[in-house]
Amino acid sequence: MPHERRRKALRSTLESGEAFLVSSLENIRYLSGFTGSSALLLLTPGEELFLTDFRYLIQAEEEVKGLPRLIYKMQLPELAEAVRSFGARRLKFEAGHLSYQIYEGLAKELEGFPLVPTREAVEEFRHIKDSEELLAMRRAVEIAVEAWEETVGFIAEGASEREVALELEFQLKSLGSEQTPFDLIVASGPRGALPHARASDKVVRRGEMVTVDFGACAQGYFSDLTRTVPVGAVEEKLIEVYEVVLRANRAGIEAVRPGVKAGKVDDAARSVIQEAGYGENFGHGTGHGLGLEVHEPLRIAEGQERELKPGMVFTVEPGIYLPGIGGVRIEDMALVTPKGVEVLTAAISKDLVAIA
Amino acid sequence: MPHERRRKALRSTLESGEAFLVSSLENIRYLSGFTGSSALLLLTPGEELFLTDFRYLIQAEEEVKGLPRLIYKMQLPELAEAVRSFGARRLKFEAGHLSYQIYEGLAKELEGFPLVPTREAVEEFRHIKDSEELLAMRRAVEIAVEAWEETVGFIAEGASEREVALELEFQLKSLGSEQTPFDLIVASGPRGALPHARASDKVVRRGEMVTVDFGACAQGYFSDLTRTVPVGAVEEKLIEVYEVVLRANRAGIEAVRPGVKAGKVDDAARSVIQEAGYGENFGHGTGHGLGLEVHEPLRIAEGQERELKPGMVFTVEPGIYLPGIGGVRIEDMALVTPKGVEVLTAAISKDLVAIA
Repeated sequence: MPHERRRKALRSTLESGEAFLVSSLENIRYLSGFTGSSALLLLTPGEELFLTDFRYLIQAEEEVKGLPRLIYKMQLPELAEAVRSFGARRLKFEAGHLSYQIYEGLAKELEGFPLVPTREAVEEFRHIKDSEELLAMRRAVEIAVEAWEETVGFIAEGASEREVALELEFQLKSLGSEQTPFDLIVASGPRGALPHARASDKVVRRGEMVTVDFGACAQGYFSDLTRTVPVGAVEEKLIEVYEVVLRANRAGIEAVRPGVKAGKVDDAARSVIQEAGYGENFGHGTGHGLGLEVHEPLRIAEGQERELKPGMVFTVEPGIYLPGIGGVRIEDMALVTPKGVEVLTAAISKDLVAIA
Repeated sequence: MPHERRRKALRSTLESGEAFLVSSLENIRYLSGFTGSSALLLLTPGEELFLTDFRYLIQAEEEVKGLPRLIYKMQLPELAEAVRSFGARRLKFEAGHLSYQIYEGLAKELEGFPLVPTREAVEEFRHIKDSEELLAMRRAVEIAVEAWEETVGFIAEGASEREVALELEFQLKSLGSEQTPFDLIVASGPRGALPHARASDKVVRRGEMVTVDFGACAQGYFSDLTRTVPVGAVEEKLIEVYEVVLRANRAGIEAVRPGVKAGKVDDAARSVIQEAGYGENFGHGTGHGLGLEVHEPLRIAEGQERELKPGMVFTVEPGIYLPGIGGVRIEDMALVTPKGVEVLTAAISKDLVAIA
């Protein structure tokens, strides 16, 4: 039971007399398996309690195993009672995942109790994916790869960005993706210069590069990747840019191994782009962690001191954006292995000739 | 400019020396037109400031008109400086839309400043839809109606719930829906007894009722409606239940007019179901407000004292759920008019014979 193992690891960080309230739904899913949209989880060194409302009674019975469940009516009074009955003397909570309004209500119910804000306590564990998580992430990649293969033929002269996005989303869902991680990006020609362009009604023309940023979701875990494809013959400048970005993507991936600092992966990718003279045109970080969320706190960016460890999964996605002209981004998912790196999204070619 | 008018109305509620920080993205959209995913809005009786980060520079220029814009790097320091430069002496904030973590950061930046939690201050205005909002909501209904017409033929023996949901979602998106408001519900046969059942791999069989709960999004505004359709001849009991729910739906709608309390609409629908002996099988409220969110704070439920006013839009969605047997829910969107009610979703028949 991975959930029980994960809870045990978290509980082992608590001191006697401490209780920890988990309120992030992703963290609750990570620790209990619950996939509904309303729940709380309370842990102490010796006790555990899962709380939800009556709408999720049956779902909680099916999904949440091996720890006591409580169906609340009022939520905060029942939670406060449980904190007291566990003999806790102070309550840690997730400062980034509790609104001030709920905090205020809790402070009232637990008058005189110290409430201690914590930051990313569960996320710290989630950085390292275990085998159950990697299985789900590999499935999310597989779905994305298959959907891409079904859709890539659609990226042609005359199709609108929105039509391409719609077809891709339909394929992703048909192949079993539980949800789409974000509004899919399909950016053609000059719109490729906007890193966060949504798919628009713009029609793809010959001679344009088209950047497609997409992903799937399996058992709650996300994939996220980007390919940029040329439609017909594109100008020399864009081919040069493509080759620089591809070298940067490969250099970033090659820098990944246990013990290396996250910032070094950014350095490796960024220096390729800088040396080619495009440093000013790469305005974002090189990558981000992902898993139960498509953006997790692990950042692959300048100056990040965090050491890479086996089991971490993050994107490597350098890009060059030329205002008014176009852009190229190539995004893969990298898994840190005991000896180095595995590219989870290797099944889709990045070779410009192969996809032209 | 509706956004300017709306900001003016909110600013008129502030006392001299007060500043109001808007952090809910829906409230920011309502007050400024901004559709991105990172922004803040600061208002005082005499000043206004829109804040976002560099990723949204161009989007903010296009969408946010008629008030000063500031691109922040650190967010909270720049916000605190603006609060001070506006001469504010205390800062109201949205307690339900600010995490404790951000609250803490703000308290640090504004040491010595009273921070005053507020609840649903902007939502109070959003209860009453203006003409621009109603236009978008009518469009969201139109898309849903057209998608339903394209999909209803699919609801037949042998199709899985998931296939029906996928087809409906594809039609909604093809017709221009910007997003799907929730995981579409397609619940057939005994699964119809679960009010929140997601579409599953279960295949629809003859003699079953199929409940479909869906909606569209246009210019940020949602529609939300439910129809229950029989596949082939269904047993007498389910037809009886359908007719009770339909009468309850109509009774609820007939109770809607300005000056009536929200709880009275619930009473009207609920008493039909209770008198037919199914009171125990209708476990949820009769409806909820909607607009920029698919669930807004306006509740049509027992004991709700809020008075209905022209411009309010909410669902009327009674249901009867028979464990192990099946369920029926019929959901319409009601707009309170100066004289009574307009059913926005009237274009889709609720007549059992017509859809059988």
